[in-house]
Parts: sequence; C-alpha cells; structure tokens
Amino acid sequence: MAVTLKEVAALAGVSRSAVSRCFTEGASVSPATRAKINKAADQLGYRPNALASSLTTGRTKLIGLVSNNFHNPIFLQVFDLFTRGLQERGLRPLLVNLSDENEPAASVRLLQQYSVDAVIVASSTLPVSFAEAFHAEGVPVVHAFGRHADNPKVNVVGIDNKEAGRMAARELIRRGYNKISMLAGPESATSTQDRLFGFLDAVKGMRDLEVSTSFATAYSYDAGWEEMNRLLQSKDVAQAYFCGDDVLSIGALAAVQNAGLSVPEDIGLIGLNDMEMARWNNINLTTIRQPIPEVVSISLDMVTSILKDGTGPTKAHLLPCEFIERGTLRAL
Amino acid sequence: MAVTLKEVAALAGVSRSAVSRCFTEGASVSPATRAKINKAADQLGYRPNALASSLTTGRTKLIGLVSNNFHNPIFLQVFDLFTRGLQERGLRPLLVNLSDENEPAASVRLLQQYSVDAVIVASSTLPVSFAEAFHAEGVPVVHAFGRHADNPKVNVVGIDNKEAGRMAARELIRRGYNKISMLAGPESATSTQDRLFGFLDAVKGMRDLEVSTSFATAYSYDAGWEEMNRLLQSKDVAQAYFCGDDVLSIGALAAVQNAGLSVPEDIGLIGLNDMEMARWNNINLTTIRQPIPEVVSISLDMVTSILKDGTGPTKAHLLPCEFIERGTLRAL
Repeated sequence: MAVTLKEVAALAGVSRSAVSRCFTEGASVSPATRAKINKAADQLGYRPNALASSLTTGRTKLIGLVSNNFHNPIFLQVFDLFTRGLQERGLRPLLVNLSDENEPAASVRLLQQYSVDAVIVASSTLPVSFAEAFHAEGVPVVHAFGRHADNPKVNVVGIDNKEAGRMAARELIRRGYNKISMLAGPESATSTQDRLFGFLDAVKGMRDLEVSTSFATAYSYDAGWEEMNRLLQSKDVAQAYFCGDDVLSIGALAAVQNAGLSVPEDIGLIGLNDMEMARWNNINLTTIRQPIPEVVSISLDMVTSILKDGTGPTKAHLLPCEFIERGTLRAL
Repeated sequence: MAVTLKEVAALAGVSRSAVSRCFTEGASVSPATRAKINKAADQLGYRPNALASSLTTGRTKLIGLVSNNFHNPIFLQVFDLFTRGLQERGLRPLLVNLSDENEPAASVRLLQQYSVDAVIVASSTLPVSFAEAFHAEGVPVVHAFGRHADNPKVNVVGIDNKEAGRMAARELIRRGYNKISMLAGPESATSTQDRLFGFLDAVKGMRDLEVSTSFATAYSYDAGWEEMNRLLQSKDVAQAYFCGDDVLSIGALAAVQNAGLSVPEDIGLIGLNDMEMARWNNINLTTIRQPIPEVVSISLDMVTSILKDGTGPTKAHLLPCEFIERGTLRAL
C-alpha cells in the first residue's frame, strides 16, 4: 500500500502542510524540517507522484528541451546550463533531438503526449516557424538562440547576430585587412543570414575593400575544413575570414595550417561563440563571445514567469556580443 | 471536447485498431495507412495522451538519462546517440544532470516521481552504488560506461578499461620509451582506477623501465593543462604519458607546446576515447578508441529487452578498445 503524506508527517513529527510544502517546488521549508521529512520519507518509502499530482494541478513540471545540433560543442554547455537551471527551478527537461527532423508537427505531437508545461527550443539554425508551431497549439514556448524580431510571434531570447556581423567586419577593417571574406554557416540558418547581413552592412560603400562571402554546409569542424580547403584551392584567397561560428573557424584554421600557411601571419581568422575549445592553447581563437549563460538564464526566467503568470504578451530579448582578442588576427 | 480515436478512424477511413496501432510504438502499420491516420489526427487535433495511457499500461515510456560530466566533450556524442536511439524506440529521455550531486537518493526520488520505465546512468566516473540505488528501489537500470564486474549487481555496458591501460603501456614500450608515466583522471573515478591498474599491470616486472603516475582533478582540458604544467616544473619529466582520456591529453598537449617543447619529438602523448576533437588536424591525437556507439546501442538494447521481458538476471557487457595512430607518439 502506498505510504501517505500523513504517515510521513507523523514519523517526522511535523505538520502535514510542512510535508506538502517540502514536496512542492519553490515552497518554503527550513533546512532542518526538510531533513527530518526527507529522512522519514526515505524510511517509509514515500514517493509523491508528479504525474498523478499533475492530474489535479494541470502541471507536469516537464519542459520540452528541443534542439537540433548535437555536433556543435557549444551545445554541451547549453544543455548543461539548461538542465541545471530547470532542476534548480523544480522543473525537468524532456530532451528532444531533432537532428533528423525538419518538420515541427512530429515534435509538437510528441511533447503534447507528455503534457509538457512549456517548450524551450534551443537552436540558432531552426526557423522561427518551429517555435510558432508549438505556440499555435497553445504550448507556451521560448526560442533560445532564436532570431530577433521587434514584434515577435513567440518569445525569443537571442543575440544580436546582425551587430555581431558588423563587429567582425569592423575588427577586420581596423586591423588593416583590405581583402576580407565571410565563411558563413549553412545558408538556411537564420543566424547565418543575420550575421551575413551585418557583415555586409558594415562594409557597405567602403572603398579599397574587397569583400566576398561563401557558405559552409553546417556548423561543424568538417564543414569549416572543407570550405576553407575549397577557398584555398581557388585563385581568390582573402587576407582574413569571419567564420560563421567557432567550430567552423577551427576547421578553417586546421585547413590553413595544413596547407603550410600561418595564422595570423598569412591568413587571419575570427570566429563567433567563444566556446570552450576557442580558449584552448592549441586553438587560441580570436572570436566574438556569445553570452550563452545569459541567454539560458533569461530563457529560464521567461519559462518560470509563464508558468507563474500565464503566457501574456510575447517578448523578445536581444543580447549584445563581445569581442575576444586571442591569436588568430593580426595585432592592431 | 477531446477528439476520440473513433473519430480519427472514421475520417481516415481505417479501422479503430489501425489508429490504435499507429499510436503504439513498435506496432506494425503500413506507411500509407500511417500517413492517412496522421493527416486525420492533425486535422482533428487528436492527441493520444501518453501520461493518461500510462495509468492503464503502467508504462510512461520515459527513460531517465542520468549523467554527471557536462564538461567532457564526448558526452555530446553520448547524448546525441542516446536521445536518437530512445526516440527511434518510441521512448523519451528525461535528462538528469548530476554535476552538483554526489548522492543517489535525490535522483532516485526525482525519477520515481516521474514513474520512469527505466534509468540509464551514463558515466564512467560515478561509482556503481549509484546505479545500485535505482536497482534497490526496483527501477530497472543500465549503467553505460560503467565498471565491469563478473557477477554484476546491476546491468552494465562498459569498455575494458584495464585492457585499455595495458594497451597504452604496451604501445609506449613498443616505441622504445623507457621512462613512461600515466597522467590519470580523478582518483575517485572507477575508470581511472581500472585504466591505472591495467597500465601498471602491463609494466610489472619490466626491467630498464621507469614508471610513474599522477592524477588530474577532473576529466577536463583545464585539469590536463594544470597537471602537465606541474609535471613539467618538476625535475622528473617522463618521455611519454598515457593521459586518462582525450580531453586531459589535449590540455597536456597544450601545456607541453606552451613550454616550448614538441610533441612527439620531446614528449609523447596517448589519450583514450577518440572523441571528435582528437582527429581535428590542430590536435591530431594518438589515442585508444572507446566504442561509444556500441556502448550506447547495447545499452539501448538492454533497456528495450527489460521493457519487453522484465528485468531478468543482470548482465555485464565488456567491449574492447582499439589503438588509433595519429601524431602524438613517435613512430614505431
């Protein structure tokens, strides 16, 4: 027979409401009382059933965490921060891997089956229609690393990709490079489109500046390696490249070095993200830092606020990036 | 009002049992029928509720995926393979991040609240007591990357860490190094203990061989960098190091290069895992490959078989590793 809350309260020598609070996330219980209750609960084998209680509260405390790039190392940090943050808030991540999926209907169906309280789409490459599909079905959604809009249809927390593109172009120009290029991410990614827009915007009308662009097939080391090798074999190599993100930059860096050229002496490189490997001494990549912890933390705050106060009007948060000087661009 | 299965069947022009099979994982439905049913279900807004149906089937199809190292890049691949594999089997991963947690009781409680059908512990550093805690509470568990035992108390799928340690020592000896060392992972990790055992076992009684060992504080780049810097400052630098895993090796490699020494000319290095970065041209790490996809796939097969046939006797799978020659050990 299932152990009741009353039995736990009796054994712990506390009130029933204290036991109830102890198993309600966010409710206040003193550490001493919590310890007594946990001890009694363990001794009796008491297990509050979150799914059964969801039938009365209408809340499962499950949050769908949907992502599509398990080959970009920044996502390990993204998953770490999201899972920790959700756990701290008494919520649980149901992880959905969209690597093989381009169409939102199946994910929407799947997450509705589990009655998730909300969905976080964590991706800089999925179109906004993905998050909108959840929204259209009445599932509260936050798109982290999504595309900014002034009047967003869904909640979005993202970085200023256009400004990051401008920042990269300005850094290259400041350092006296006059033949520059963007080795961009996949053309279909919203982050690629916005970074490219900013990059081209910053060089608009500039004289004595040769500018070119090309696209890699993915945000991955191999795609950066392949695209840079293709560029090196062409007749038209630039002096410096803004690579669409760090992992592309590292592939490009390897290709340049493999061709017997030096970075930054022969070719300059600047990335975007500042993922952990960028600061590895064997890489030492000059880059533009994306404020990943802030994107995650604001996304989590939005989810918490939706669960507390209902969806309300949709909001867009736009966070600035920061230039990080290391060893792959020539000095000023 | 909720849409019923009967209405979906009527609109799709198929039998009710076809609709039921369509939404039962593993049941056989022709692609054409499935397409008709999905179309009708979408049109009507039909959503089978997995949690409600779990009350009758006793199955939630939720699998707890428990891990504790979100700073070791191999885990992005591990999460990718596990989440895809679970999804293909109609199961859903509830991700639990144990980075701040050393005690199993809280995780056991958490996953029981969600009535998970089984738990996969994915960690080479957690003690077996962690998986045993789930087992003791009657939750089916598989420990992936866990410690092998001849008569295991829980299901475990792991690599032959002792043999991997022997393999590393033998490669160093074959290449004529006569002053060798193991820069091991954290001393508390079972994988460290077993790799170290094998390394020392292979050199036992060998003449004209100087052997030393030390421990890093974690399986991370920073820990490898710090420990190698400490070793380089000591009077007693070895000719070649077996590093406890790849990310430690990369930190050690950076430290050696940063000290103005060459790899493999001055110091040889061999890692373990063969994670993606090991083959990056800027790293090019000689290593021992851990068969990560096989560990994941056997773990998933065990989970599937438990769900189908019940827990049965516990089993242990032990998989061999493979030497991968790249650029950080001197040639034979």
